Amino acid sequence: MNRYENENKESVKSELSAVRKELAEWKAKGLELDITRGKPGKEQLDLSEKMLDVISTSADCRCESGLDCRNYGVLDGIPEAKRLFSELLDIPEQRLIVAGNSSLNIMFDTVARAMLFGVYGGKEPWGKQGKIKFLCPSPGYDRHFGICEAMGIEMIPVDMTPQGPDMDTVTRLVESDASVKGIWCVPKFSNPEGYTYSDETVERFAALRPAAPDFRIFWDNAYAVHEFCGEAVPLKDIFKACAKYGTEDNVFYFASTSKITFPGSGVAIMAASENNIAQIKPILSAQTIGFDKINQMRHVKYFGDAAGVRAHMKKHADIIRPRFEAVIAAFRNNLSGIAEWTEPLGGYFIDLAVPDGCAGRVYDLCADTGVKLTNAGASYPYGIDPRDRHLRIAPTYPSFEELTQAIEVLCLCVKAAAMEKALEK
Amino acid sequence: MNRYENENKESVKSELSAVRKELAEWKAKGLELDITRGKPGKEQLDLSEKMLDVISTSADCRCESGLDCRNYGVLDGIPEAKRLFSELLDIPEQRLIVAGNSSLNIMFDTVARAMLFGVYGGKEPWGKQGKIKFLCPSPGYDRHFGICEAMGIEMIPVDMTPQGPDMDTVTRLVESDASVKGIWCVPKFSNPEGYTYSDETVERFAALRPAAPDFRIFWDNAYAVHEFCGEAVPLKDIFKACAKYGTEDNVFYFASTSKITFPGSGVAIMAASENNIAQIKPILSAQTIGFDKINQMRHVKYFGDAAGVRAHMKKHADIIRPRFEAVIAAFRNNLSGIAEWTEPLGGYFIDLAVPDGCAGRVYDLCADTGVKLTNAGASYPYGIDPRDRHLRIAPTYPSFEELTQAIEVLCLCVKAAAMEKALEK
Repeated sequence: MNRYENENKESVKSELSAVRKELAEWKAKGLELDITRGKPGKEQLDLSEKMLDVISTSADCRCESGLDCRNYGVLDGIPEAKRLFSELLDIPEQRLIVAGNSSLNIMFDTVARAMLFGVYGGKEPWGKQGKIKFLCPSPGYDRHFGICEAMGIEMIPVDMTPQGPDMDTVTRLVESDASVKGIWCVPKFSNPEGYTYSDETVERFAALRPAAPDFRIFWDNAYAVHEFCGEAVPLKDIFKACAKYGTEDNVFYFASTSKITFPGSGVAIMAASENNIAQIKPILSAQTIGFDKINQMRHVKYFGDAAGVRAHMKKHADIIRPRFEAVIAAFRNNLSGIAEWTEPLGGYFIDLAVPDGCAGRVYDLCADTGVKLTNAGASYPYGIDPRDRHLRIAPTYPSFEELTQAIEVLCLCVKAAAMEKALEK
Repeated sequence: MNRYENENKESVKSELSAVRKELAEWKAKGLELDITRGKPGKEQLDLSEKMLDVISTSADCRCESGLDCRNYGVLDGIPEAKRLFSELLDIPEQRLIVAGNSSLNIMFDTVARAMLFGVYGGKEPWGKQGKIKFLCPSPGYDRHFGICEAMGIEMIPVDMTPQGPDMDTVTRLVESDASVKGIWCVPKFSNPEGYTYSDETVERFAALRPAAPDFRIFWDNAYAVHEFCGEAVPLKDIFKACAKYGTEDNVFYFASTSKITFPGSGVAIMAASENNIAQIKPILSAQTIGFDKINQMRHVKYFGDAAGVRAHMKKHADIIRPRFEAVIAAFRNNLSGIAEWTEPLGGYFIDLAVPDGCAGRVYDLCADTGVKLTNAGASYPYGIDPRDRHLRIAPTYPSFEELTQAIEVLCLCVKAAAMEKALEK
């Protein structure tokens, strides 16, 4: 999509020089804006300030069972934390591991464990099976792809649709190729599009009959409760769907409070079938005596129950919503007929699709004008967006004023790149 | 050593039946005592209560640099934490990674990383090199050995001496066998003997010329500041010793605050040469965005500087010292001529060496009387103590009264087992 291609070249040239003049004026202001990462803004972090204070004495560290959170022990999370996240995610406690400060760390470790030790039902560690592959719905989360790249796992991009990954392709590859060992999924408010998988997509994941006995769906439900538009956006329950097909062992589920309380000082959660948990725990117990139980207790005391988390998320929503609205309004006003973008109801990102071959150029133009974007291509395996068109927009971190400035610059850069491209033809 | 072997059989029999009667009386009390693990006692945990409270507002989370500890970012630790541990451990900041809540986790990850990715200077990942081996000074720390066992790394026991591992054997094996990739060391107040490596031992470690280019010394300085007898027990600095030989790349160094503040909610530290750190960081950055910076800041604000930590450790010492003194007094009064034990000046353990072939029997007798010991054999690779004689005594966790009861029972059980053994001959 590039309306400039249908316009008179002279008028495009004249508009381009006007846009360049505007960009030069922006550049002269010496902007240093950064909309690269999905980081909560300061106002959001302040929402959890009172959590810093809920554990202030030794007595606050005691579990109902009498367990002292200050000492060694408990591999898979304190009972109170399991109860909280079981209620919040609707997953039975015996399937949960409440862990440390980073779900990315848990995902990396889960892949590393599979490489070194294999998974339940597998005959050999992944690392002993020669070339193995992961399916990577794309655009997707760069840090998922980074794990595969580090491990030397071949990544196969699969197209994303508003209903989730292209399930015909997923099904064909998973069911025919035993070297396909995994797929990365952000099933709700996907990174970066903000799509939520349809019921049919979840059902088709549950129904998969993998060629590999040691295939796993990496279900990163990072934005499980991260609606910002009021209405709840339902995601079909993957474990319940799998129960019908007897495929619960196929799923590794992840979540965290990084974008509920504090990124880096939250609590990460892994969930899996009883068979998987039984395979994982002995290895985990060689890795650590336990995770930070005091911080788990901090979360429990602060939220109380799932309703407490949901009430808290409404406050995040009120901060995030206007930012997404501002970005989308600017795109509508400036980029219609030039670019496409997603309009999520939750999560942290917008995917902006510019004309083919323009994303890298937009990135460079923005950088030159003082606005740092996530690298073009970052949302594709190996950083290679085959059509060079996707840019991930993260509206949460800068101040509102900085955000509107950055988006204004971004829109100008998209226009400029689109005009340059049209003039090439 | 078993003085009963030199005594009149009839008098031994008569003493044995008296000891058995005493044990039966103890058993009738229905004791449930546990001296298995090196866990700080409640009174020790209470020492750090005020740390729970030092971060109570958002402003407390801000670093000098302006960095907000509540948000994503900083892979290797906040500058203030690096400064604190650099001063405490006398290691340059650029060699430090201040990490999460568990040094065991960092050690496991370091071995896993070597298995999957190799180490600086190595040609291939350890996991691609067929059978590899670790030297395991024994008695040693069971969880170190557990990592090797989980990874399928063959463990070769090496005798411990009061000066450290038998360095003739270590040197011969490390310098002749390229499949030897590592050695586990607790150089100060070793687990379980409480020995501190002599200067000569450290110097010989530094001087090692490993056959394997990817050999590493796992230097777990878990008890770096854990003196409990007043006088400082010096440990020669391994990095400085290595500098003379150009062997700094051979060392992976670990420490933690688990037994300074809260086990499981402390801060772990890894240190390594610049070459090693440069090899590790990109892999670490695929694993996590960062560790819990708020908890790092909590430690920094609570201690201020290394002197703050040292002053705090004196309070631990005052709690721990009488316990070790009580145990050793009981051993001296009851077990002279029957068993040998170490008399550490710091750390968490005493190694009790009973007559050959008696450790398992002592464990069983204690269990039967209601006193749980660490498994006999636990301090040897694969849980196999070839002479079945070492028991690890952990005096810190029970109440003082429970400890004295448990040790009284233990002494009776050692006597009983020693008499039984003498009567067999």
